[in-house]
Amino acid sequence: MMLWLGDRLTAEEAARISPLDRGFTLGDGLFETLRLSGGAVLRLEAHLARLAAGARVLGLPMPSLDLGAALAATAQANGLLDGVLRLTLTRGTGPRGVLPPAAPSPTLVIAAAPAGPALPPARLVIAETTRRNELSPLAQVKSLNYLDGILARQEAARRGADDAVLLNTKERVAETTIANLFALIDGALVTPPLADGVLPGVMRAAVMAEGAEERPLGAFDLERAGEIFLTSALGIRSVSAIEGRALSSFATAERLRARIPGA
Amino acid sequence: MMLWLGDRLTAEEAARISPLDRGFTLGDGLFETLRLSGGAVLRLEAHLARLAAGARVLGLPMPSLDLGAALAATAQANGLLDGVLRLTLTRGTGPRGVLPPAAPSPTLVIAAAPAGPALPPARLVIAETTRRNELSPLAQVKSLNYLDGILARQEAARRGADDAVLLNTKERVAETTIANLFALIDGALVTPPLADGVLPGVMRAAVMAEGAEERPLGAFDLERAGEIFLTSALGIRSVSAIEGRALSSFATAERLRARIPGA
Repeated sequence: MMLWLGDRLTAEEAARISPLDRGFTLGDGLFETLRLSGGAVLRLEAHLARLAAGARVLGLPMPSLDLGAALAATAQANGLLDGVLRLTLTRGTGPRGVLPPAAPSPTLVIAAAPAGPALPPARLVIAETTRRNELSPLAQVKSLNYLDGILARQEAARRGADDAVLLNTKERVAETTIANLFALIDGALVTPPLADGVLPGVMRAAVMAEGAEERPLGAFDLERAGEIFLTSALGIRSVSAIEGRALSSFATAERLRARIPGA
Repeated sequence: MMLWLGDRLTAEEAARISPLDRGFTLGDGLFETLRLSGGAVLRLEAHLARLAAGARVLGLPMPSLDLGAALAATAQANGLLDGVLRLTLTRGTGPRGVLPPAAPSPTLVIAAAPAGPALPPARLVIAETTRRNELSPLAQVKSLNYLDGILARQEAARRGADDAVLLNTKERVAETTIANLFALIDGALVTPPLADGVLPGVMRAAVMAEGAEERPLGAFDLERAGEIFLTSALGIRSVSAIEGRALSSFATAERLRARIPGA
């Protein structure tokens, strides 16, 4: 695989991250997952705007190079027309300590992967292991601090599910470990508000634009929802079961998939 | 600088972390900061026990090599008798996605640095930017997910302070970005209980053994404390001001420094 590292393409085997990179030592950085379709990056501007918003929260300078061109070059170098691109931006190396250097030299990595097989509808559980911290500004930032999601994803695997819903510290529904969540409740398509600890997903925004409302949700609302689906940059995935209760209505997700490019 | 990487010493410039290492891409790992004094690692067993406890939470295998010997070899290779060692253990590389590989090959790095100059007493603020999530099992794990601490440390710098106290989601005092906190209140030496989102510090345990009690604390308890000090593997640091209020009593910290090796 060819990776983008810094300002150029590099063979994966030769690409070196310093053991002193703050992305490695402290999770001090951001990422974006982008869908490549027919050679084009879908919703590039929205992804770059979210990256820039996260960089402002962290006080991290954005790279001066053309990220769209770097993403396209990485896809092309791997002969990919359809697949997934992952962009990682860290604060680079620094001296020992938590306080970032005054003038960091950020590290930029772009990796490409083919699209996986189409996934069947997801079976969800509600995570018991951990909670999402809606009181941290990081809840709205796609940061490298992914361990709560990893713990919840491991719990889902132990419980025979595909993904786990994370509640926030007030027991409200936030999102799953890799996706935003929508539910059809009493005839209304609803999704939790950002303030409940929700990452502002690019596909979430595309679905909102088709008509959905933000509403705080409890686990109990999911128990009575008629349909649930998940959204991420990779598409819309229906949910076939939550906490063991089967769901058989997929119509809203199907309608949206037909209307939203790349969904 | 010579680093320990994997199973051997390597020159820093030649030491390579893969851009696909989950420590770099997802903060999927742990670390320990250890004090080296007169050629010996202080409280090695306690640090390794905490690392092993964190590895159990993450489902990460502990390295089979002798970590004490690797730490000593790293110190020696850098000609250090006194200083700081940092051990980082990540889940290693993995395929795309959040779920860890079933049989990970962890990455181990040990870096060494000379002891910095003795620090004056610290000026603290109480962080307004973010909160520590005591509802996550990661609150008791020294993980690579350090961004909340970085945000709070940046806030401290903006506000002219040396470090910031993190409150938890229920507005109780947890710890600072790099240390546990003790306070003398109504004649009693107290520190927040682990359940309030506190890392089980090795020096914290050494101070507890000299006589201190766990008690939930609010910001307002710190406002009326007669003495406050911070503990980390690097020692005990007195506090000279909190939220602009000067503190001039350092007697308890001085007494403990005289009693606890390396404090």
